[in-house]
Amino acid sequence: MTPVLYDYWRSSASYRVRIALNLAEIEYDTTSVDLLKGEHLENAHLSRNPQGFVPALDIDGQTLTQSLAIIEYLNETRPVTFLPDAALERSRVRTLSYIIAMEIHPICNSSVAADIMARTGGDEAVRVDWMKTYIRKGLAAFEKRLGDGQGGTFCHGDAPTMADICLVPQLYNAERWGADIADLSRIKEIAENCARLEAFAAAHPDRVNAAG
Amino acid sequence: MTPVLYDYWRSSASYRVRIALNLAEIEYDTTSVDLLKGEHLENAHLSRNPQGFVPALDIDGQTLTQSLAIIEYLNETRPVTFLPDAALERSRVRTLSYIIAMEIHPICNSSVAADIMARTGGDEAVRVDWMKTYIRKGLAAFEKRLGDGQGGTFCHGDAPTMADICLVPQLYNAERWGADIADLSRIKEIAENCARLEAFAAAHPDRVNAAG
Repeated sequence: MTPVLYDYWRSSASYRVRIALNLAEIEYDTTSVDLLKGEHLENAHLSRNPQGFVPALDIDGQTLTQSLAIIEYLNETRPVTFLPDAALERSRVRTLSYIIAMEIHPICNSSVAADIMARTGGDEAVRVDWMKTYIRKGLAAFEKRLGDGQGGTFCHGDAPTMADICLVPQLYNAERWGADIADLSRIKEIAENCARLEAFAAAHPDRVNAAG
Repeated sequence: MTPVLYDYWRSSASYRVRIALNLAEIEYDTTSVDLLKGEHLENAHLSRNPQGFVPALDIDGQTLTQSLAIIEYLNETRPVTFLPDAALERSRVRTLSYIIAMEIHPICNSSVAADIMARTGGDEAVRVDWMKTYIRKGLAAFEKRLGDGQGGTFCHGDAPTMADICLVPQLYNAERWGADIADLSRIKEIAENCARLEAFAAAHPDRVNAAG
């Protein structure tokens, strides 16, 4: 059975899984779950993920959810190295990944941002400031962490890992919301190296949206 | 060298790591980083974790940060089973863990809650409502996920895993903020089973604070 990814072009958790599937060279079909139309809250999708989040991935006879759990699963079952072999190095890659996946992404979830607007009675400017604030804060922390002496083409060494898979979609969001990250030079360099890889380029929201 | 945990009694990420160290039967020393006194933003702590978060753990000649990265590291280097062996089961445990660690905890971080108060111009009631809303929402999702046919004494089978290590500190927070979770019967049952284990009981904030 060909794996099926239930995703939304602009969702950064979906974007992560698209990159991972591409890096793993796994052929997959895509079913779009349109968040703007509320399709994620319809029964068809809730049966895949009771939380209503995208992505969900049908693979190996199961439906998996949570992008990082999917990436760890692929790392354990496919010939990829989304995490290095040594435990201390794996810890470094997970720490970098979590700075984005735990400390930026959930706070900037669209439903949380909408809640901020509702609670403040504010308009779009409130949302934009919220996004810019937390994206900037988190990516600055990420850059600091990168700077702990382990150089390389990517976040950890010379091959992409889970950290790069988390970073690139977050940078798409940074650009979308206009977060000020021009000074984060190491991140910028890594992003350029990722963009040169077809696995990353093919997963880009604009490519997916144009193809959709 | 005896490992050193830099923690704060009420921090739920610290609480997670205390449980994990206890379950792994690792002897460790504790240095308190008092968040109320701002000690996490002093150079001594920033040198351990540039993000200023607790916990940090000195172990095996390195300083590790991010509670879930620490738990995965212990699972990889010590004779514990914070994750089951089979990849699909590991994915289930990670998914449950992330529902708490990614979708409740960061949104209810004290600095985010303080920001909500500042942006709304609201008082303590605003903070309490924020906490109750997101804790309830996340734990209800967790309960739904638990209900997918895999019973047992704990979240996954009859031994505690990373999911239980994430759940128990979140329940402490649920009680602290008065979140309405009385109907989540499976969670309640698991929490009672965890509380009977000394590894969980000894990590409880009240025990740590009293000993401190």
